[in-house]
Parts: sequence; structure tokens; C-alpha cells
Amino acid sequence: MTQPAPPQDTLLDALRARLGAAHVLTDPDTVAPYLVEERKLYRGTALAVVRPASTEEVAFVVRACSGAGVPMVAQGGNTGLTGGGVPQGGVVISLARMDRVRGLDPVDASITVEAGVILSAVQDAAEAAGLLFPLSYASRGSARIGGALATNAGGIAVLAYGNARDLVLGLEVVLADGRVWNGLKSLRKDNAGYDLKHLFVGSEGTLGIITAAVLKLFPRPLSRCVAFVGLASPRAALDLFVRLRAGADRDLTAFEYLPAFGLDIVLRHGHGTVRPLSGDHAAYALIELASARPGADPRAEMEAALAAAIEDGLVEDATIGASAAQDDALWALRETLPEAQTREGASIKHDVSVPLSRLPEFLETARAACEAAMPGLRVCGFGHFGDGNIHFNLSQPVGMDRAAFLGEWQRFNRIVHDVVAGLGGSIAAEHGVGLIKRDELQRYGDPVGLALMRTLKAALDPEDRLNPGKVVALSDHPPQALP
Amino acid sequence: MTQPAPPQDTLLDALRARLGAAHVLTDPDTVAPYLVEERKLYRGTALAVVRPASTEEVAFVVRACSGAGVPMVAQGGNTGLTGGGVPQGGVVISLARMDRVRGLDPVDASITVEAGVILSAVQDAAEAAGLLFPLSYASRGSARIGGALATNAGGIAVLAYGNARDLVLGLEVVLADGRVWNGLKSLRKDNAGYDLKHLFVGSEGTLGIITAAVLKLFPRPLSRCVAFVGLASPRAALDLFVRLRAGADRDLTAFEYLPAFGLDIVLRHGHGTVRPLSGDHAAYALIELASARPGADPRAEMEAALAAAIEDGLVEDATIGASAAQDDALWALRETLPEAQTREGASIKHDVSVPLSRLPEFLETARAACEAAMPGLRVCGFGHFGDGNIHFNLSQPVGMDRAAFLGEWQRFNRIVHDVVAGLGGSIAAEHGVGLIKRDELQRYGDPVGLALMRTLKAALDPEDRLNPGKVVALSDHPPQALP
Repeated sequence: MTQPAPPQDTLLDALRARLGAAHVLTDPDTVAPYLVEERKLYRGTALAVVRPASTEEVAFVVRACSGAGVPMVAQGGNTGLTGGGVPQGGVVISLARMDRVRGLDPVDASITVEAGVILSAVQDAAEAAGLLFPLSYASRGSARIGGALATNAGGIAVLAYGNARDLVLGLEVVLADGRVWNGLKSLRKDNAGYDLKHLFVGSEGTLGIITAAVLKLFPRPLSRCVAFVGLASPRAALDLFVRLRAGADRDLTAFEYLPAFGLDIVLRHGHGTVRPLSGDHAAYALIELASARPGADPRAEMEAALAAAIEDGLVEDATIGASAAQDDALWALRETLPEAQTREGASIKHDVSVPLSRLPEFLETARAACEAAMPGLRVCGFGHFGDGNIHFNLSQPVGMDRAAFLGEWQRFNRIVHDVVAGLGGSIAAEHGVGLIKRDELQRYGDPVGLALMRTLKAALDPEDRLNPGKVVALSDHPPQALP
Repeated sequence: MTQPAPPQDTLLDALRARLGAAHVLTDPDTVAPYLVEERKLYRGTALAVVRPASTEEVAFVVRACSGAGVPMVAQGGNTGLTGGGVPQGGVVISLARMDRVRGLDPVDASITVEAGVILSAVQDAAEAAGLLFPLSYASRGSARIGGALATNAGGIAVLAYGNARDLVLGLEVVLADGRVWNGLKSLRKDNAGYDLKHLFVGSEGTLGIITAAVLKLFPRPLSRCVAFVGLASPRAALDLFVRLRAGADRDLTAFEYLPAFGLDIVLRHGHGTVRPLSGDHAAYALIELASARPGADPRAEMEAALAAAIEDGLVEDATIGASAAQDDALWALRETLPEAQTREGASIKHDVSVPLSRLPEFLETARAACEAAMPGLRVCGFGHFGDGNIHFNLSQPVGMDRAAFLGEWQRFNRIVHDVVAGLGGSIAAEHGVGLIKRDELQRYGDPVGLALMRTLKAALDPEDRLNPGKVVALSDHPPQALP
């Protein structure tokens, strides 16, 4: 008599029979890239990586895994920054083969895409129809829309267009028991019961697996103007932002912040970046005005606004891009900063937000507290200032041992997150919680709010099969493994 | 030996002891207004109306009622149109005394208000700070913000600013067991776990009681232009809308639609309304352009756009308001339509939405189907065209018995909602579900989505104490009593 096959072999056989053997990956080398994330802070394990090609196949996989008691992690482009997509055993469900644009309607101003469509492909499809899909961030060439929605991604267009969730009209979601919720509507108003889409957007695959979405499109900007300004302080940046917001209203499409140290390292390491202003300043802002109105003149508006700001002593110096190439060069100063910081050694990172009015206080208080905690530490708080969202990253002291520095991660988390919490901010602004902030969220979250989150998780995924141990841990999961 | 007091007397004694006897209303005349809704379609019953003055008092009431097994209905201004606020026994919790503006920060561009603040008072507070709170609709002088959020209200500013949920940064909510979730943050980005606020917004008091909110404010428009145009058909209206949206982008702040019958009855019954165009047209649109940019010239934009549209045969005739008074007079043509329809006898109403591209098909198909179903019926589909949201109201045939006409409500629901469903629309666009559409929602909703809603209700309110029988009925509730 032969022994019965182990349950996991039975599961893999069932998955192979349905998806085809080519789409059930178990070879360690093939599986390896699915086990690590962008920053290489976490390395997971998985029984297999499966690549379903349709919603029905995703539902089959979920039912099969559920039935076998095996956990699942959905992955898109695996570009997340919190360890949220790293499997801790179980099956990785890659949505990469679900990469069809199902439809685009220019009158509805909406596009229906499968979860595996790459973000830049959504942008390109919109552009081909003369429209704009505004969501955009550094990994747009490899991030997939399902992951962008599952993490409620932010990026460089939030100021004018909102976060990923604000761009969603409808969703299709596979639930923990394999049922499929079809919420793929293209409606600007719909109060037919509870809003389910917002429950899944930002839940990082712990409540359901997004397989398709209807997304909002917008008129495409016809003109833009990009400026780079030197400022005396974060307070001056805030005053300038408030003034521009009032004057340009929704034509203000970006207000990004860099401290002096940020521009220094960009100019040191950025490939081909050139010094935008002749002098040195304590702080810098990249400002973009853009409009889809044919008669708009964002350049004239920018010139007038900055001339007045210089005259009023709000801005120390400013330059305005005179061509699309110059605009791109100014943007590059902001966009190459994360890469430049990598070249300065190890970084301890915080993705936080505070009320806009508290930004100067946050930047100054957190900086002073961190510098006091480690001589030689180089603080680099930069980012989406106009959203109140700062990437408060700490570069290691020059010459310090990398591992020793990263060993201080928790200590600096405490310092920075205490300041954030004291100002009514969020310790997870745009990258999400995943693994890296799961325990921090327990510390800083409203206790009733956290209990509610666990109630929702238990109601939608009672067996704890969907990305277990992420965001809010339902059952007993090992604590996060920080570097 | 005296008998123990009945449990409901014990409850009322406890409520009086905590709130004061003056705030526990049981006198039938005093209670009466809380038992009916705007349209007088439903009349409920209640043990008492309580008027807590603080979040803590609301929490006390909820704990006390829960402990006594008594259901609760939260009420703000009681201006809802779906019977969602009508009590069916139990206690009415009026939020009217919680009417404090807790704070306003012009830099954060946010305002923190208690649930009982009247909508127009929120608008006024914003205006006093030089800012705009855009949510607005006919009952703004008596509707309270808690109800506006609980129903995810729409109104006349959705096109440019979104529905009520899009204006919320944070919430404070009393849960079914009396715990208080403090989510009163003023952050533009916050991915610290599941988005709880969207769960409560639009849940019509069935998942929790909103006691306070942080709301977004916007730069105040400095200039606007209002036009009223005559069109050959709904298709022409859609073509014009698409053209204006592309050209004016987010300066297009309203695109409202009236059929010929709608303008006829407004001119017949509207107090002081005057014919805006000399000729007759099949359809009309009210268009508003507005901007907070000091240099904007919406009037010049409107003139150029409409001149081109007339030349291209898209618009038959147009008039542009030459003063604020004329602008208001044009708006009055749209805003007095519901009242004018009341004067034409009984109406059977549908608040529906479809994808923008399907608007002409919806208006024409639903109209033909309704007219075929009852000779002499006068169809009036009007409203927030730019949101895809039509108030598809049917005026009774002249001379028909009122009650006999209203007895056909369900038959016309079926006709209209079948068309809506066939076009991928929603049977509840902006007024919500309440009682009046609860059973319709069961018929037309996605079965998995409906099951999810019940799962959420059961998870957050397992004893079914919060507004039971509304939106999604958890336990056995009598079917809706239509007129």
C-alpha cells in the first residue's frame, strides 16, 4: 500500500491541473525573487508561486489553498516597501499574467484594468485616449495596479488628484473563501449600501485579493511650469505653499520638499544632475503648476507668484524650467534623492505624515531629536510636503558600520514616531504597514480603531489565510524581524 | 411588595439621570416630528427621543440601550429622503445638541465639527475663514453634518469636489457597544491600517453613530459664471458636457439637466422665476464655471465655449448670467424644480445613476418605458447630469387619483430600476437606501456584495441594535411599507 500524498503535494497537484504546470513555480531559483522585497529587509519562504490568468483561476487558487489550510500572499510587481508582499510560508499568488486592459471609455472618463497591468501601462493607455491617469511614483515601470490599490499608493500627484483610493470607481475582489465580489461599476455616485471598495483599497491583501478595477481618468494637462526655489526654513516652505494653494487652487499639482543635505547628495551622486540655484539655502521646494485648460498660462502664474514671494522675502532664490527638458531636470533633483541617499550608506527610513500646519515643527523637532541621539547622523526629511507627507530618512554617520547603524532602527523609530504621534500624525503615510510597521501600529494606533480592524479581519478572513501577520495580526505571528 | 419596573422604564430612568429629564423626550406631541420623514411616506414609533450633548453622553445612551436590548436610530436634521432615520420602536438619538465647531485651521484647510452642526453653519464657518466647504443641497439650512456623512450626501457640488465621503479627513464614531473610535485626524495621507472612516460614511447609522468629523476646506472661488442653455436632446447635453469638461477641467463646477417638462412646471409654479430663453427646447442645462484663481475669467471662457457650441450646432440657444442676481435666478430654475413638481400632484421618484456615456440611453429608454406603462404620465428626469445622477421622477397624470397613482410605485420602480441595472447603474445614487430601497437593493445588488454587507453589519453590530432594518436587514424585519 502506498502512503497518501502529503496535503501540500495534493494542493500543488490540484493547482497544476487547473493552471498548468508552467504556472505553478517551485524551483528555488525561479521562486527566489518572490521571497524578497525592494529593500531586502525581509526574506520569506513559500511552498510555490502560482500565476493565475483569470479571476476564475484566482478564485480556484484561493478555494484550493483555503481548503488545504495554506496561507496566501497576493503579489503584483513586488515593489512594496514595507514587507507586505513577502510570504511567510504558503502560496504566492502572482497577478502578473492578469494584465489586460478590459476597456476604456473616454466619455465615462474611466478605464477598466486587471490587477496585473503595470502602472505605466495604465498611464500609457490613458494618454493614448488623450486622457490622464495621474497616479505615479518611482516604480511605475514595474509596479502593478493591483498592488497600487491594495496599498493605497501615494506618489507625486496626490496633491491635485488624491491617493490611489480616490481614483477608484469600482473593484473586483476574490474573497478569502473564493467568492468573487463584482463591484466593477463606472459610476460617479453610488450609495447602494456600504462602500465595499474602500474596505479593500489599502488593506494590503489581508481582506481580499483585488483582481480588477475601474479607475478614473482626467483631462490631460496641456501646459505645465516647474520651478525650483531656495528657502530659509521649513516655515518659509509652508508659508509659500499656503500662498500658492490659495492663488493657483487646483492648478498646483506638486509641492515637493528637499533639505539642504538632500540637494547636496543629489548633486554628489545624481547622474547628470546640475545645481539649480547658484547659492546655498536651508531648504528647497520643487513646485509644479499645470492645467488642462487651453487658455491657461501656468508659466505666467508661476513667474508672478514667485516674483511676489521673493519681494516679500518668502523665497530666497528661484529658477523656472524653460523647456520640457529643463522641467524634467528639475524633477530629477527630487526623484533621484532616494537613490542618492542609498549611495551615502545605510538609511533608517520613516514614511510619516502630519497636519500641514505642523510640518515645520515636525521637521525641526524630529531632526533635533535624531541628531541628539547619534552624533554624525545625517537627517534627510524630504518628500510630498504639500500632502503633509515626509520621508524622514536618516543617513548613517560617515564611516559607521552599516549593520551597527541599522541595529538602531527601533530606537530611531521610537524617537521619530513619538514626535509624529505628538503632532497628530500618522506613522504610515503612503507606503502602508506591511510587516515593518505592524507592531508600531499596535503601539500608536487608537485602541478602538485597532480592535475594529481586527474585527474586520476576523469577519472577512476568519481562517486568517490572506496575507496573515501583515497590517493587523489576527492570530499569533512572530514579531517583525527588523534588520 | 412592589413589582419591579418594566425594563424600558428602568432604561428611561437611567437616561434621565445622565442626560437630564429635559433631554429625554416622551411626550407624544414633542416626539411626533422625529417619527416622520420629509416626504411623509413613513411614520415610525419610538420609546423616547434623547438629546445627548457630548460624545460621552452618546456612548452612555448606546451602552444603556444595548444593555436593555433596545434599538437606536441616530437623527440629525431628519431631512433624509429614504426613511433611513425613521425609528421602528426603540430610542431616537438626536445629535442636534452636539453643534459645536471644535476648530478650524486655515493652513490645514480643515474644520472639526460635531455631528449636530447644521450644514449651512459649516459653510458659514468656512466662509468666515476665507475658505469653502463645498457640500451643499436644498436642505442645507436644516440638515446636520452627521446625517450628511452618514448618508454620504451628494448635492450640487459633487462634480468639482466629490460626494460627502470625499470631504472627510477624520471621524469620531460611537460603536454599537458604546466604545468610541477616535479617528479625528487632519491628514491628507494616512495608510496606518484599514480605512475605517469610509466604512461609516454612507452606512446610514447602521454600523456606528458619527459624533464628530474633520472635513476638508478649499480655496474660495473668486469668480463664477452661470449659463442656461437650450438643447435638442439628452445626447446633445452629453456632447456639450464632455466638451466643457475637457476645456474647463475642474473649473466646471456644475452641469445640471432639466427636460422641457421640468422647465415648464418651474415657470408655471416657481415664485418669480422668469423664462430664461425665448424659444422652447427639448432639454436644458444649467452650467457653472468657477475658479479661486485671481486671474481666472470664467465668463470669457463660458462665452467662448458656448459660442463655439452654438456654431457647431451643439447648443440651440444660451443665456449667461450678467450679475450675481441673474446667476441666482438661473440656479433657481433648477432648484425650485422639486417644489414645482410637488404642485403638479403626486410623484413617484427614483434617485439613480448610470455611467455618463449611458445617460442619453437611460433618459430615453426609461421615459419611453414609463410612458408606455401609463397613458398621461408625465416623466421628469432631471438633476446632476455631470455626475451621471438623475432624479427620475414621474408626475401623476392630470386628474388621476393621488393614492391610486402612488399605488403604482413598485411597478414603476421595477420598470426604471430594470433599465438602470441593464446599463450598469445604481438604484441609489445620492439619497441612500434607508427603508425605501432596502428590498430593491436585495434584488439588484451583487449577491456577494450584499453578503459582504451583511457580514460587516453582523461584525460591527452583532445584536442588530443600530438602525435595524435599514440598508441591509440582518434579522427578520417587516418589508418596507410603500405608500
